Amino acid sequence: MTTITHSLAELAERFELSLHGDGTRRIDGVGTLAGAGPSQLSFLANGKYTAQLAATRAGAVVVREENLADCPTAALVARDPYVMYARIAALFERLPAAPAGIHPSAVVAAGAHISGSASIGPCCVIEDGAMIEDGAVLGPHCIVGTDCTVGAQSRLVARVTLVTRVTLGKRVLVHPGAVIGSDGFGLAFDRDAFDHGGWIKLPQLGGVSIGDDCEIGANTTIDRGALENTVLEEDVRLDNQIQIAHNVHVGAHTAMAGCAAVAGSARIGRYCMIGGNAGVLGHLQLADRVTITAKSLVTHSIREPGEYSSGVPLQGNRQWRRNAARFKHLDEYARRLSALEKDSNDE
Amino acid sequence: MTTITHSLAELAERFELSLHGDGTRRIDGVGTLAGAGPSQLSFLANGKYTAQLAATRAGAVVVREENLADCPTAALVARDPYVMYARIAALFERLPAAPAGIHPSAVVAAGAHISGSASIGPCCVIEDGAMIEDGAVLGPHCIVGTDCTVGAQSRLVARVTLVTRVTLGKRVLVHPGAVIGSDGFGLAFDRDAFDHGGWIKLPQLGGVSIGDDCEIGANTTIDRGALENTVLEEDVRLDNQIQIAHNVHVGAHTAMAGCAAVAGSARIGRYCMIGGNAGVLGHLQLADRVTITAKSLVTHSIREPGEYSSGVPLQGNRQWRRNAARFKHLDEYARRLSALEKDSNDE
Amino acid sequence: MTTITHSLAELAERFELSLHGDGTRRIDGVGTLAGAGPSQLSFLANGKYTAQLAATRAGAVVVREENLADCPTAALVARDPYVMYARIAALFERLPAAPAGIHPSAVVAAGAHISGSASIGPCCVIEDGAMIEDGAVLGPHCIVGTDCTVGAQSRLVARVTLVTRVTLGKRVLVHPGAVIGSDGFGLAFDRDAFDHGGWIKLPQLGGVSIGDDCEIGANTTIDRGALENTVLEEDVRLDNQIQIAHNVHVGAHTAMAGCAAVAGSARIGRYCMIGGNAGVLGHLQLADRVTITAKSLVTHSIREPGEYSSGVPLQGNRQWRRNAARFKHLDEYARRLSALEKDSNDE
Repeated sequence: MTTITHSLAELAERFELSLHGDGTRRIDGVGTLAGAGPSQLSFLANGKYTAQLAATRAGAVVVREENLADCPTAALVARDPYVMYARIAALFERLPAAPAGIHPSAVVAAGAHISGSASIGPCCVIEDGAMIEDGAVLGPHCIVGTDCTVGAQSRLVARVTLVTRVTLGKRVLVHPGAVIGSDGFGLAFDRDAFDHGGWIKLPQLGGVSIGDDCEIGANTTIDRGALENTVLEEDVRLDNQIQIAHNVHVGAHTAMAGCAAVAGSARIGRYCMIGGNAGVLGHLQLADRVTITAKSLVTHSIREPGEYSSGVPLQGNRQWRRNAARFKHLDEYARRLSALEKDSNDE
Repeated sequence: MTTITHSLAELAERFELSLHGDGTRRIDGVGTLAGAGPSQLSFLANGKYTAQLAATRAGAVVVREENLADCPTAALVARDPYVMYARIAALFERLPAAPAGIHPSAVVAAGAHISGSASIGPCCVIEDGAMIEDGAVLGPHCIVGTDCTVGAQSRLVARVTLVTRVTLGKRVLVHPGAVIGSDGFGLAFDRDAFDHGGWIKLPQLGGVSIGDDCEIGANTTIDRGALENTVLEEDVRLDNQIQIAHNVHVGAHTAMAGCAAVAGSARIGRYCMIGGNAGVLGHLQLADRVTITAKSLVTHSIREPGEYSSGVPLQGNRQWRRNAARFKHLDEYARRLSALEKDSNDE
Repeated sequence: MTTITHSLAELAERFELSLHGDGTRRIDGVGTLAGAGPSQLSFLANGKYTAQLAATRAGAVVVREENLADCPTAALVARDPYVMYARIAALFERLPAAPAGIHPSAVVAAGAHISGSASIGPCCVIEDGAMIEDGAVLGPHCIVGTDCTVGAQSRLVARVTLVTRVTLGKRVLVHPGAVIGSDGFGLAFDRDAFDHGGWIKLPQLGGVSIGDDCEIGANTTIDRGALENTVLEEDVRLDNQIQIAHNVHVGAHTAMAGCAAVAGSARIGRYCMIGGNAGVLGHLQLADRVTITAKSLVTHSIREPGEYSSGVPLQGNRQWRRNAARFKHLDEYARRLSALEKDSNDE
């Protein structure tokens, strides 16, 4: 395997950065300040790591202007070193080769439309009415169901299932095990079903619309809408094992951490941040730029941007048990407190 | 693709509803009161939407007798409009064609029994001793392991895995990514293993039994029993990403919302409703008709029907932090409150 | 199918146990004290079940010395009956046949290295640079990506995905739907992207290292590191639907129950027990032998072994609502309590 290398001068020119040090030095990878070697690039974005800068063995460091004087090696100066590092590091990512064409083990329906520049991996199944646009890459074992579209330059890493009526925009990245377009969980309780009543399923006749530049994590599930579509606007970023129920609408540039869940018909604003294993109940609305901390449950709509939380702090189990038992009487304590205050005032 | 249409007169006759308006009008789909057009059917089940009835452009609406006077268009009168709408809407669902027979890319063991009327999709793997009954449909990439049975008219949408000793009843619907019959999480800590002790696995020798008319959501996991079976009775409805541990027993007509989890050997009653991301600890018992609200943790058995909850409300983060910090001292506050009351009474 | 049987004398000799009763009795399986029949072995490990011992119909029971007198049938005496039962029961587990060789439907890249004694099941996809060691078993539909290694005697049950740069040690067991080596969730917010800012992805250039004897549950996800590896040391046991984020380090012999989640760069000690749906925030450290109870959220590092919890108890919904509403004023109550105490002292 040949190594990818870039000279510091090339990097400086490509990303319009000012370079301090030897521009002929060749970089073949990236690393942490503590771990990078002489042919690797590192970065300093967080003040906590400033002490590590002096001792770094990295070949070059992306720094802010203000840290330049303390950098013992070559430096590339950026306003936002973390973002710039992300852009440069992407040059060293080695994506699996994805030659245009359809692997002979793939099963492609006669009524599927596949661009000549798309790459369809082993054991993929593409059903009637599916469309795979230019430069899209489907890794092994992807299933693209009836009336689904995979937009140009999108990549389904492996074993992704698009069930039906799913449209992915351009440059969408979907990780293994994700299921998009499965039936929403819509049930009506029918008193006349079975002996004492039971469930009737509501057909899920809508689809899913995923905007450009979204990322969908491993084993994440996004159900299709009951009548209208479940929607992710552009640049929505979902981590692993997230559950998006039917008819949810997620605004552009919102990010959710692992195991978050959004119940049916909730509407999340733009630029929101939903913490790990946080939940949003059905039919609620969250304004733009709302942050929900990890494991919180959103039980009412939120109209104002800001950070919101629920939960109680971790404690040693014995101590926690005592406090938790008291929680069951909190209302009583509050009443007793008020009564005492009244007594005290009456005296 | 030809459009499915039904006249209002046909629908009224088929579902034994009284029709008000032009029976020759043809319906080709369903929609919300606000979104449905002249060839679509809508419904009014929830009083909150009564105001939308007057303005609807739907071709017909399923309503209660009491709303008939306010309906500006044709109407079908039902005692429970939501249930009736669900039944009618099912007529307009377009399921993927599933021709009887075995796709040439499927891998079927010599010792598997497959009904001639079953449909086995691309890349399915059916192992020895598996049985696929009449009219069952397996979408692409399903795996049916040794000694598993897929009951008549059941449908595995795509990429479903039945590991071993799993029996699905009739008309069971399983969504993509579900894993049924995986090893239960059974470990014994052996002080003599490794240097300072380690884990010994208990073989999981039971199976899974799923009753008729159950539905299992995308990426849901149901482990097989250690010695006896994990059991879902009939008409149990599980949403996506639910975890059912070994030896759990779920009563008929119980429904669980996304990301709920039930630990080993718990026994859930009939007609229970388990909210999203709620949890039930191991070996507990829940009576029939117990409702658990979202994200609650059930830490003791529940003998009485009713609704149960845990958790604390969402607040702005700054305010929440102050309250949460106080939680760590709740036991102390309760004692101080009692002491004050004693002082007050002693005066 | 032939039945596996062992005489009690054989079992006693093999596991170095003292036998009381007829050594010629043949055992063909295991069961609970209440359920086992005359050809089955059971065990008594938990004092709660002592009453069942007298009535058991089991052919033999593994007991502690102290319970021998109460055992109405043949007995095998062990210091730790649960561990010994686990070892014996494993003899009766019937694993699917896994003949050495590559199934003709598998797709194996020219640059993959596969031991002659490994078993590669139907529809597996093995990419360039992958290595499958001696005696490893890959069930149907496994994907082993570029530069991944499956260690000797490891078993991927079915439909397991190793994305890239994943190394499994020896005797690792991975259940269906698990995804190991997917992209970590690394994003930088770029104010210059899109109109008002958006996300830039950080390439995830590390891998995943899984130690010997680990077990990974169904639909569990383990992301690869951003720069260095995500690491599980030996004998780590993960249940279903667990999420391990990039750069997490899990110490040897730690076990996590279903739906637990660990955020990026957290470091969990050895011999820890993480309860179901518990969470650990990013960059925290947990000492060895820390236990976290179900659904707790770890929000700070833990330096001392012991059991830790968060959450509030389950109550009837009406009662819970009253208490939960009061939680929003807990800080105020504490202040009012202090004020009353001050008044009381001033009097």
